[in-house]
Amino acid sequence: MEKIAVITSGGDAPGMNACIRAIVMTADQNDLEVIGFGHGYRGIVEDLNQPLRPNDMRLVSQRGGTILLSSRFPEFKQDKIAKQAATVLDQHGVGALIVIGGDGSFRGASHLARFWQGQIIGIPGTIDNDLAGTDTTIGFATAVDTAMEAIDRIRETAEAMARVFLIEVMGRHAGFIGLHAAIAGSAEAMLVPELEPQPKLADLADNIRRARKAYPDSSYIIVVSENLWPGGIDELSRALGQATGVTCHAAPLGHIQRGGRPNAQDRILSMQLGQSAVHAILDGSRTVMIGIEQGHVVQVPLHLTFQRDKPLDQRLVDLQLGLQQINFASNDARESA
Amino acid sequence: MEKIAVITSGGDAPGMNACIRAIVMTADQNDLEVIGFGHGYRGIVEDLNQPLRPNDMRLVSQRGGTILLSSRFPEFKQDKIAKQAATVLDQHGVGALIVIGGDGSFRGASHLARFWQGQIIGIPGTIDNDLAGTDTTIGFATAVDTAMEAIDRIRETAEAMARVFLIEVMGRHAGFIGLHAAIAGSAEAMLVPELEPQPKLADLADNIRRARKAYPDSSYIIVVSENLWPGGIDELSRALGQATGVTCHAAPLGHIQRGGRPNAQDRILSMQLGQSAVHAILDGSRTVMIGIEQGHVVQVPLHLTFQRDKPLDQRLVDLQLGLQQINFASNDARESA
Amino acid sequence: MEKIAVITSGGDAPGMNACIRAIVMTADQNDLEVIGFGHGYRGIVEDLNQPLRPNDMRLVSQRGGTILLSSRFPEFKQDKIAKQAATVLDQHGVGALIVIGGDGSFRGASHLARFWQGQIIGIPGTIDNDLAGTDTTIGFATAVDTAMEAIDRIRETAEAMARVFLIEVMGRHAGFIGLHAAIAGSAEAMLVPELEPQPKLADLADNIRRARKAYPDSSYIIVVSENLWPGGIDELSRALGQATGVTCHAAPLGHIQRGGRPNAQDRILSMQLGQSAVHAILDGSRTVMIGIEQGHVVQVPLHLTFQRDKPLDQRLVDLQLGLQQINFASNDARESA
Amino acid sequence: MEKIAVITSGGDAPGMNACIRAIVMTADQNDLEVIGFGHGYRGIVEDLNQPLRPNDMRLVSQRGGTILLSSRFPEFKQDKIAKQAATVLDQHGVGALIVIGGDGSFRGASHLARFWQGQIIGIPGTIDNDLAGTDTTIGFATAVDTAMEAIDRIRETAEAMARVFLIEVMGRHAGFIGLHAAIAGSAEAMLVPELEPQPKLADLADNIRRARKAYPDSSYIIVVSENLWPGGIDELSRALGQATGVTCHAAPLGHIQRGGRPNAQDRILSMQLGQSAVHAILDGSRTVMIGIEQGHVVQVPLHLTFQRDKPLDQRLVDLQLGLQQINFASNDARESA
Repeated sequence: MEKIAVITSGGDAPGMNACIRAIVMTADQNDLEVIGFGHGYRGIVEDLNQPLRPNDMRLVSQRGGTILLSSRFPEFKQDKIAKQAATVLDQHGVGALIVIGGDGSFRGASHLARFWQGQIIGIPGTIDNDLAGTDTTIGFATAVDTAMEAIDRIRETAEAMARVFLIEVMGRHAGFIGLHAAIAGSAEAMLVPELEPQPKLADLADNIRRARKAYPDSSYIIVVSENLWPGGIDELSRALGQATGVTCHAAPLGHIQRGGRPNAQDRILSMQLGQSAVHAILDGSRTVMIGIEQGHVVQVPLHLTFQRDKPLDQRLVDLQLGLQQINFASNDARESA
Repeated sequence: MEKIAVITSGGDAPGMNACIRAIVMTADQNDLEVIGFGHGYRGIVEDLNQPLRPNDMRLVSQRGGTILLSSRFPEFKQDKIAKQAATVLDQHGVGALIVIGGDGSFRGASHLARFWQGQIIGIPGTIDNDLAGTDTTIGFATAVDTAMEAIDRIRETAEAMARVFLIEVMGRHAGFIGLHAAIAGSAEAMLVPELEPQPKLADLADNIRRARKAYPDSSYIIVVSENLWPGGIDELSRALGQATGVTCHAAPLGHIQRGGRPNAQDRILSMQLGQSAVHAILDGSRTVMIGIEQGHVVQVPLHLTFQRDKPLDQRLVDLQLGLQQINFASNDARESA
Repeated sequence: MEKIAVITSGGDAPGMNACIRAIVMTADQNDLEVIGFGHGYRGIVEDLNQPLRPNDMRLVSQRGGTILLSSRFPEFKQDKIAKQAATVLDQHGVGALIVIGGDGSFRGASHLARFWQGQIIGIPGTIDNDLAGTDTTIGFATAVDTAMEAIDRIRETAEAMARVFLIEVMGRHAGFIGLHAAIAGSAEAMLVPELEPQPKLADLADNIRRARKAYPDSSYIIVVSENLWPGGIDELSRALGQATGVTCHAAPLGHIQRGGRPNAQDRILSMQLGQSAVHAILDGSRTVMIGIEQGHVVQVPLHLTFQRDKPLDQRLVDLQLGLQQINFASNDARESA
Repeated sequence: MEKIAVITSGGDAPGMNACIRAIVMTADQNDLEVIGFGHGYRGIVEDLNQPLRPNDMRLVSQRGGTILLSSRFPEFKQDKIAKQAATVLDQHGVGALIVIGGDGSFRGASHLARFWQGQIIGIPGTIDNDLAGTDTTIGFATAVDTAMEAIDRIRETAEAMARVFLIEVMGRHAGFIGLHAAIAGSAEAMLVPELEPQPKLADLADNIRRARKAYPDSSYIIVVSENLWPGGIDELSRALGQATGVTCHAAPLGHIQRGGRPNAQDRILSMQLGQSAVHAILDGSRTVMIGIEQGHVVQVPLHLTFQRDKPLDQRLVDLQLGLQQINFASNDARESA
């Protein structure tokens, strides 16, 4: 086996470029050649290839996005399209394909494995961290930092004006970004999909009302996961405003969470996974994801990464639920003192 | 005259704290005492005062928001409320009041001047930069940097996925943030209120379509001022998507533009204005705004700051309109070459 | 037990304030009162106390440094000084003391335990990460991010001018910051105290020479731990310059690594440890450090944290040693192709 | 005239890439072709050319450094080397050369003009801002922001530990970065070359001593320009430490000031100058620098930019000298109150 191909697929995530660098450097030391296909699976099918060499990698780790470009490519589910990809890979003499992406990308990889004999290695790259088999994914830590910095900014103006803000963060259908951003941003409340039971509107409103009464000059921030509340945070803000009599401002963070320079944690993770992926190829692994669990690099069968749900870390859920609890009795006591 | 009072009023802006520091330091060197009232005009009326001393100022310039807190207080338009404020100021022996804020705050200051004999000095503090009589306002430069950094992040993911984004920036009814952010973010198009004539939907759509055809793998970013397009960027994104057949993503930046550490430009401006305001008080000025024009500190009668519109710098408008123009002919030529 | 005291001691670290917040919030929910003593152990002895209340905590997590201030206080090793501290704590009715700091602070805590009957809980707060019994310490992740961002900046100018840079990072006598910053910064070489054997000057010089020959237009960055090379990086730069004939620029990062807003990882860690410390007090623990190992909060006898050396994660050492290895043979092959 | 060449020369500065983008976009709209030579003047002599096209420019404005690379090339002073450059330019059919750089680069440009008939246009690109004929230069505003952020970080740890810091900033032989960073960082003292008379060691020491006495728990920061104090800030720190009995910490910021993403101000300036340079070429200008004075783009004969010294803005000097003055009398009064 002499040639490795790499794609980034699905939503881009900060750290993908650092991962590509590690793949290229590690391959080079083992005398393997690396080519990249642009735009994910589509790029394989359309043969949009380029050589990836060590000297091109010196300034890429620092950058967000992906130098290989990415795309969503639902057509890849069709057998004939996947077969075309297999043909292109064979024509290039590619012996192993590394796919950096999320669950959709890994479904695609599993599909491709039916038609292609090469080794396929997945690397978890998604800001949402919603892949089983790995504690964290490329881009997640940076997305949390970005969301936190945005919350910090909003906190300053919210505090200056004593305002209530609902801040919507990404995560697709998982609450990882929401939970971590809520803790890091010292949020007064948090709405993420995994909470059981979900907080009721009446309880949220009650908490806001009591907090405003106890601390009238203070800000109040609720972190809300996307795709959770029907009508989104605009609707939730209206409902809470009506229930409390307090204007509730909606701040959706949106796509800024996807970009930006990867932080150190994401770069280190990315390079660790990239290096390990090449080692796994040399060791003969196939159709696995390279993940990280409790500091150890692990290999997980690809299909297990998207067939199971990954739970939030309950200790962190308890941390936030604990910290966000306002002791109104204590405040009353102090007030009356 | 021995005592100066300071308030921050209306929307907070990064740099207000640096301005307060300069006021306090300069007053102290001239043996003037400074007190602050919290929450803007409301704080005067409710006598929410606190002493402001040099040694408390060492860590404030770095912070966004306002340590004095702010508020919108429409009740201040009533004569009897303004008279109450005058009474409180007199009770404290305040000889001069410095108001850091925007046009609403300066209207309030003009109103107060009818009932209070002390000196009133305005300092332009608003991220929107929509005050006549000064080239720039406290917070504007930082807001532009914040918007630009957000555009940079979105650019990375937009480029990775070859997407079209509409990014909505603040500015109330003025296009200053929009114009500067569009240039700094290398936007492909810009919609700000001052453009004459306003770009038509059909022309925008046509440009997007041609750009996608010429550069199918590229991002395309339109910076749009708030309060401009009926229905906002959500509606505009839908309309453009329909007209072009290309998905157009909407990204409203919202309140993150208001917070954050002031950049150097804003801190220097803020301190210059704060120091000059105290000097103006010592020189006997009253009912003026301290502004900056072409590097020089100027004094402008307060009412002139909100009765006139401030135009955009036409040279910068021309800069952006020039840079954003794609030479499709040149592309066609290269393509056919 | 009704009252908890908190100090921050030794070098400050980003995240200490988030930790204080978590302590205060958690204590309040459990109807415990919290006081802080300023300037570490010195503040106990001099009784520089202040109440710490939930409502004061809303804007502190975001800030670097420590709101309680810190100091080095070698006098605390004297028995009579420690006894004075015990007396002050007793006078305030303090039942438990939380010390956020590094190994010197924990030695102080162990010393105090000889003279004071209250519970003493340590929380690891140091950017150097050189405490056994915990995978990481408050401030470490942020310091790595800061060092990495500095390296990124230097990389840009180094690349523009094709220069060799030696960048000195903190860490006292441990290589944690050096190792993590080298990986995150894609350094071409790394000098940290734990490497066995230490790279020789001749080998370093040889690598630089060969890299310059293979890639004459490229930057080359060596990350060097402080307190490692006799004469520091100035001396090492001179020596390498002489050995290679290439100018080697020295860039000591210095104290910027200690300040700055804590990143999300540090805030979450800090709050987790702070909350756990209060729970540990309620559970009756004494003279332990609250640490984190593989995601789990653990308690470690205080004296074990500073009597053992903590090794680097060998997997990360291997990662960097692998990635930094330039395959000159591969380059030669390409050149001759 | 159909072809423009561009080089970046001397020390790189954030914003150079945005300037290159503006040149390429503007040229393209006017049907001019642009080529870049790598590594400054050396790249012309060695004919290291590359085409620069609009579609390559979409992701460059955001980046520090220079995509064209730069170098110092003293050999260019030789007539025969300059003649070689002229020959290469003629061989490519270049009609105009744009040089982005500082005074050394403009001396080179003047030299080249003796041997080459094409139009030569200079654009001021240096973080030091030490070019006459323009109020500011590409990279200066970003360097000030970078220095300020470093001072902010050091301020936090200095405050936590009540320390005195001397922070050395860049500027070559000019105090622009020093002055602006001192104001923006709220420095307690400033040493820049233009001060007349220079502060004496005894006075600095006296101020530190008095400040420590009046505010023993506070930080004290002195911003010092490079190349000013014999022996640098290490020597000055030792001398001040000896004179005051207080440890004075030295923090040289070094090359981090040169890198980093350009801020909005620098990007806008860069694009304005780049666009104007192409317009100047179309208008037939030759051997001028495109500068900016009070918001207006101006043209200045090249040799005037490096033959005169540019003074600091005296108003900003007065601002800092005013703000940094501690009113000890006021403190004594309060103390005794």
